[in-house]
Amino acid sequence: MIENVAEIVKQISQGVYVISVDAGGKRNAFTAAWVMQVSFDPLLICFSINPEHYSYQLLQQSGDCCISVLRKDQLSFARHFASSNIKDKMAGCVWLETEGKAPALAESLGYFSCRVKHYSEAGDHKIVVCEVIDAAELNSGEPMLYCDTENMDNSQDLY
Amino acid sequence: MIENVAEIVKQISQGVYVISVDAGGKRNAFTAAWVMQVSFDPLLICFSINPEHYSYQLLQQSGDCCISVLRKDQLSFARHFASSNIKDKMAGCVWLETEGKAPALAESLGYFSCRVKHYSEAGDHKIVVCEVIDAAELNSGEPMLYCDTENMDNSQDLY
Repeated sequence: MIENVAEIVKQISQGVYVISVDAGGKRNAFTAAWVMQVSFDPLLICFSINPEHYSYQLLQQSGDCCISVLRKDQLSFARHFASSNIKDKMAGCVWLETEGKAPALAESLGYFSCRVKHYSEAGDHKIVVCEVIDAAELNSGEPMLYCDTENMDNSQDLY
Repeated sequence: MIENVAEIVKQISQGVYVISVDAGGKRNAFTAAWVMQVSFDPLLICFSINPEHYSYQLLQQSGDCCISVLRKDQLSFARHFASSNIKDKMAGCVWLETEGKAPALAESLGYFSCRVKHYSEAGDHKIVVCEVIDAAELNSGEPMLYCDTENMDNSQDLY
């Protein structure tokens, strides 16, 4: 039996990330919290994505993405990339080229440029397992945690 | 190109958990950090496990496990369940029955009793996707983060 699910799942600690995708010039980026490392060698990261999102279509076309790590005080980025009513969410931010097809958010703590290895079913989401092909630290600071977004009006859109 | 991988992956925030397995009386528990929610409906959690661990054999036999969430000050539990040279790691701790086959650590913040749905390949690990069949908050406090284990001599054994 599970009562009060929303409170219980808060005990699972997560960071906050901006995941960018570029499929031949069609590009988008979204805020995500369900991201983790899953293998040392090769270095693999997985994340869980809502397959109804536009970025999921782009991801399937491109096979590449870039995961940028947000810093504790970057709530405005978390909020911006979680919105679904902005036409070009990537405009107005500085992006760095990576060795993959998707760029990294220059103001983030660091990035993991990833190539999709495979997808796995996960209820109302899809798990995307990716190999890290390029990664770097960009800035110093403490990573944002999902619990830091509690007062963000659209924090539920991080999934 | 990825230089200084160990430092870069620290930017990915993770909690710390004790995962217990009981396969018809053969039981074990281990400390894990690669755990995250992946679906709302049904409520699914995945974790990444080293398939060379004894607990992976038990998990395949039982199909059930319980994920207990450690509190920030419970480093002694993190260290204990990360050791591989203790014969019965579950002895001496209080365990609570759950609706699944595996018990929850009574002193933890809360637990997720899980049934394995499927496994997915992940390099040197396996991703285990589980449905939560029972969960509860047990105690109050702040969850431990993987970065809290930095001074733990066997923190590398959390994977």
